[in-house]
Amino acid sequence: MMSSSKTPQKNIEITPLTGIPNIHPGDDLAALIHSAAEINEVDLNHGALVVCQKIISKTEGRIVELAKVTPGSEAIAIAEEHGKDPRQVEVVLGETVRIVRRGHGVLICETRHGLVCANAGVDLSNAPGEDMAVLLPLDSDASATRLRSGLEALGHNNVAIVVSDTFGRPWRNGLVDVAIGSAGIAPIDDARGGVDLEGRELQVTTMATVDQLAAAAGLLMTKSSGIPAVFITGIPITGDGDLTQVIRNPSEDLFR
Amino acid sequence: MMSSSKTPQKNIEITPLTGIPNIHPGDDLAALIHSAAEINEVDLNHGALVVCQKIISKTEGRIVELAKVTPGSEAIAIAEEHGKDPRQVEVVLGETVRIVRRGHGVLICETRHGLVCANAGVDLSNAPGEDMAVLLPLDSDASATRLRSGLEALGHNNVAIVVSDTFGRPWRNGLVDVAIGSAGIAPIDDARGGVDLEGRELQVTTMATVDQLAAAAGLLMTKSSGIPAVFITGIPITGDGDLTQVIRNPSEDLFR
Repeated sequence: MMSSSKTPQKNIEITPLTGIPNIHPGDDLAALIHSAAEINEVDLNHGALVVCQKIISKTEGRIVELAKVTPGSEAIAIAEEHGKDPRQVEVVLGETVRIVRRGHGVLICETRHGLVCANAGVDLSNAPGEDMAVLLPLDSDASATRLRSGLEALGHNNVAIVVSDTFGRPWRNGLVDVAIGSAGIAPIDDARGGVDLEGRELQVTTMATVDQLAAAAGLLMTKSSGIPAVFITGIPITGDGDLTQVIRNPSEDLFR
Repeated sequence: MMSSSKTPQKNIEITPLTGIPNIHPGDDLAALIHSAAEINEVDLNHGALVVCQKIISKTEGRIVELAKVTPGSEAIAIAEEHGKDPRQVEVVLGETVRIVRRGHGVLICETRHGLVCANAGVDLSNAPGEDMAVLLPLDSDASATRLRSGLEALGHNNVAIVVSDTFGRPWRNGLVDVAIGSAGIAPIDDARGGVDLEGRELQVTTMATVDQLAAAAGLLMTKSSGIPAVFITGIPITGDGDLTQVIRNPSEDLFR
């Protein structure tokens, strides 16, 4: 699309939305974000709103009480081998279509969405109680679309939504936020067919825009900051698409 | 370090440095960036300067004329198998300590720095001529330190440097910018020992700050934009370290 070459470059601004309360199942996230935008005096139009997965999952009730989980034999065996809570492993296996790797106390799982990440994205930290697990949304694209519609109904126009989660990577230490769903923006900015500065055709410069937005937002959305959403302006909000564009076709993947 | 919880949250601003000319070996990059900051009226102090690898490599003369390359038998065999230019493969192999995977016309290589990426980071696109290849800097941390010192000598204080390159990832389509070197900032923000919002100890929330900065900068530093450097303010510039902190120990890596 080459959108970036056609528009004059301007600054990108990343604004934290503070004051979003602890989230409970059924909460109206659009209304809470609308209020936070008002409190923070943020003009929530024409930009990308990055929202951490956890508050989406909580509003959708994607919370499991570990006390109610009965681990099966596979979960018990894996938990014993890796020194984990078998109930947690049971929850992880329930979210997993395939274990891609396991070792060093880590389960790298492929989720039903096609995401590959540690523990199928199941998270204990920041859960409402010690014995809770927060699961990924069933369909983060749908969650993003609902939030976008809710914000539109409250008068916020042209707001792209990116749902972010914090993933590890092979070969590199440290975590980086990535997108697990989006709405109202092309997930991949496809520059194929454009030309580089020397006039040669760019072959495969397809930037993962939603992942760059998630990572940028992650600079403010640290676990300890209590900031679950940020608004990013200064980037072109164009196109649309879904997570399937971000997930590499397994037949083309060298690391499955 | 939990630095982010101790400081009040403010906006992050990402400013493109336009007007940096085409780079040639031996150019004084600090002086060129100093001038670009003046032209763009950017206060180049107390922030992170993200610079794309290619202009660092060019100033350091890390350019190979393919016409002068004689491919060896391994390069010829691999080139034939994957439909590539054997001279380019020879250059890639010269930068490679180990081929991690090959298939689908792609060589995933481990470089001498421990980076794992396509073609050992060797790039043809945007090279000065059709038959040139641009290699990664020999030591991007040292390049970053030199640039930081050069900027300091020109009056720019507390400027962290991140050298970025554009990498693919397993499992996900699209490219994202990552850090291949840095100076004047802790590459990994280690929150171990902190507590989450419920008071529980955070175990392994180690964010790859330099990678998040590189990805954020990548939103403006697209190939077609001609912007090789951006300045990011609003993040704490603390600590120091080098690329070895970012490279996962091979013995702990599940994907080598």
